[in-house]
Amino acid sequence: MTTELSADAPSGLLEQARKDYQDLAGRGLSLNLTRGKPAPEQLDLSADLLSLPAGRHTAADGTDVRNYGGLQGLLEIREIFADVLQVPVGQLLAAGNSSLELMHDCLVHALLSVLPGAESRWVDQERIAFLCPVPGYDRHFALCERFGIEMIPVPMTAEGPDMAVVERLVAEDPAVKGIWCVPKYSNPDGVCYSDATVARLAAMSAAAPDFRIFWDNAYAAHHLTDEPAEIADLLAACAEAGNPDRAFVFGSTSKITAAGAGVAFFGSSPANVQWLLGNNAKRSIGPDKVNQLRHAMFLRDADGVRAHMERQRALLQPKFEMVARILETELGGTGLARWTDPKGGYFVTLEVPDGCAKEVVRRAAEAGIVLTPAGATHPYGDDPRDATIRIAPSYPGLAELEQAIEGLAVCVRLVGYEQQAA
Amino acid sequence: MTTELSADAPSGLLEQARKDYQDLAGRGLSLNLTRGKPAPEQLDLSADLLSLPAGRHTAADGTDVRNYGGLQGLLEIREIFADVLQVPVGQLLAAGNSSLELMHDCLVHALLSVLPGAESRWVDQERIAFLCPVPGYDRHFALCERFGIEMIPVPMTAEGPDMAVVERLVAEDPAVKGIWCVPKYSNPDGVCYSDATVARLAAMSAAAPDFRIFWDNAYAAHHLTDEPAEIADLLAACAEAGNPDRAFVFGSTSKITAAGAGVAFFGSSPANVQWLLGNNAKRSIGPDKVNQLRHAMFLRDADGVRAHMERQRALLQPKFEMVARILETELGGTGLARWTDPKGGYFVTLEVPDGCAKEVVRRAAEAGIVLTPAGATHPYGDDPRDATIRIAPSYPGLAELEQAIEGLAVCVRLVGYEQQAA
Repeated sequence: MTTELSADAPSGLLEQARKDYQDLAGRGLSLNLTRGKPAPEQLDLSADLLSLPAGRHTAADGTDVRNYGGLQGLLEIREIFADVLQVPVGQLLAAGNSSLELMHDCLVHALLSVLPGAESRWVDQERIAFLCPVPGYDRHFALCERFGIEMIPVPMTAEGPDMAVVERLVAEDPAVKGIWCVPKYSNPDGVCYSDATVARLAAMSAAAPDFRIFWDNAYAAHHLTDEPAEIADLLAACAEAGNPDRAFVFGSTSKITAAGAGVAFFGSSPANVQWLLGNNAKRSIGPDKVNQLRHAMFLRDADGVRAHMERQRALLQPKFEMVARILETELGGTGLARWTDPKGGYFVTLEVPDGCAKEVVRRAAEAGIVLTPAGATHPYGDDPRDATIRIAPSYPGLAELEQAIEGLAVCVRLVGYEQQAA
Repeated sequence: MTTELSADAPSGLLEQARKDYQDLAGRGLSLNLTRGKPAPEQLDLSADLLSLPAGRHTAADGTDVRNYGGLQGLLEIREIFADVLQVPVGQLLAAGNSSLELMHDCLVHALLSVLPGAESRWVDQERIAFLCPVPGYDRHFALCERFGIEMIPVPMTAEGPDMAVVERLVAEDPAVKGIWCVPKYSNPDGVCYSDATVARLAAMSAAAPDFRIFWDNAYAAHHLTDEPAEIADLLAACAEAGNPDRAFVFGSTSKITAAGAGVAFFGSSPANVQWLLGNNAKRSIGPDKVNQLRHAMFLRDADGVRAHMERQRALLQPKFEMVARILETELGGTGLARWTDPKGGYFVTLEVPDGCAKEVVRRAAEAGIVLTPAGATHPYGDDPRDATIRIAPSYPGLAELEQAIEGLAVCVRLVGYEQQAA
């Protein structure tokens, strides 16, 4: 998506788009494409969780999962996800129901206690900055904003963030303490980091001794094709490159089992794991181990996760295919849009002509189709080209999704041709 | 427990104690009285939780509890605990599995974002101090220590903290931002705050505009007699006194249902609730609502909680009675000890002669009886009189408990008579 979008608008196209939009607005739709939420049918795949662990309350090692303790999380659930998340089981923690919480807490602890390798708490430093590959995930950016962490956008490429830019900024600026990465099927553009990108991230020199890669592997097992993407093992690469403490790996079952009642994971070097455990020991007397046992019984092993994700794919793939088909039918050849064709994950990125995204989202909302706010994919909500729209096809049913994407296409034509006519 | 402990040691008592200790040490015991953990039999009372919510996944208001969202927590579980915790349901949040986490996070958010009424973030202030009624809960103190919050001990009385001291410190020192309170069946000495104490806490003038009472109502429903203690409604008292934002109320089902897999609660003024929700919205996409539904189905209503706590009492009361009986038999009239007779909660406080607590704990450990470290009941682990020992009778079975308390009594006689002989 690098060439400029443009088109000669043959006469009549704008008129037709206006007429189509009038029809659309008259239909009284109420559709929502904002959030990457699993659909009820996806959650039904984990219905067994709702009556587990049945009578059982003892973990494999004899732990009574109902009682206090066990800060690391249950071994059996960590064993399953060690494989999925590419983290040695001894360096993987199983926690509560949200990996976003773990990212938040890692920032909090880095702000308020000294990270391995750090000279002082982040809160005692004049300026803290994070690199933000764009487009990216709005909740990562919201965490930075909430803690006054400066965000520096870095362009994405088909192989991950533009590493020449990343390397320069990380090497030169000691205030750059971190980078947000969604390395597999990235949010929102579905990019998988290449091996070269992972190797460069692991090996690059950093001005900050406490530089961290926030590796949000949210879609590790969330494939949409027969050829599951594999990414290189960042944690191992960092260790090999002599930067063992550089990577914080996050993941969860939120989009595997239940979005609000899953299990989240943190993996890192032994030093970082001890640092987080030490901080967590002040905060908690242990995670919900009953839920961890419930998940271990339900998923069984890494193969169980893969089989389960095939069932998820069977529900999701038709939605992504429908989005691609409608966008091609309605916008193909117009020169008004480009879109991604993700091989996994939860999103499609729609790129419209510069200066059009906000207006497309506004017109869609007026017609009853709620989209993620334009700009949300960029730090401070500021997409400088105003061109990126994130589509989340997972939640609506197929019929609703069809209406929503057709309606969205109408809005793109309307706004695009209006701009050309202006 | 205010008069000085002392005794004339008739000759032979030390010799007998030494002999008893030698017998004790020879028995090869391995007993643990350290933590206020529920016993397995108590957890069995909530066995039904392990197969709930069965097939159900919809809350009363139609929310799909499996999916993201619902930061406030499910209405049905908040309705049950609004009554128990004396918080209007609209001002009560249901969260994760730990109220300690909520206390930690309130400190974090106060450090890193501006509290209602505050002039700046706590982290930007030179000095932050909390009042710590002693004896108190070591995990409260550990939170202060972890964040560099200065702790100022305040003596406990039979009606709660010594309010003359509290009022003076809070009125005079703008760095005093908070006080830790366990208002009902306090940890460890089982004190219930009197109505006068609650009224004075609510109405006293504070030099800090952002002064907060951390009201850890951990034992709100945890009675051991037929006359359940009632405490005054702090939140209402604060509002009436014109200090509506003064109280943070915490509670959980950890010692009601499952210690590691319960539901925690936060209640406060509308402004504070909005403040916490706003901060939580950056951290999480919602708590585990499946677990909240599970609890609401199991407990049903406030009466259900009361009935359940009667069953808990049936298991706990004999243990507390046994502790009192053995202490009376073994130490009554020796002048070597005083102990509390709590009407609820989880602990008995044993007071030994000044300078003896650490040594008693050490001798007990050598004989295979692990006690909470002496000093843990005081900030920085420093009990200036070295006289307080916390006994946690809930976890061991009756036979083990009997051995442990008898052994402890031997250690008290040994150390006490040794001191007198020295």
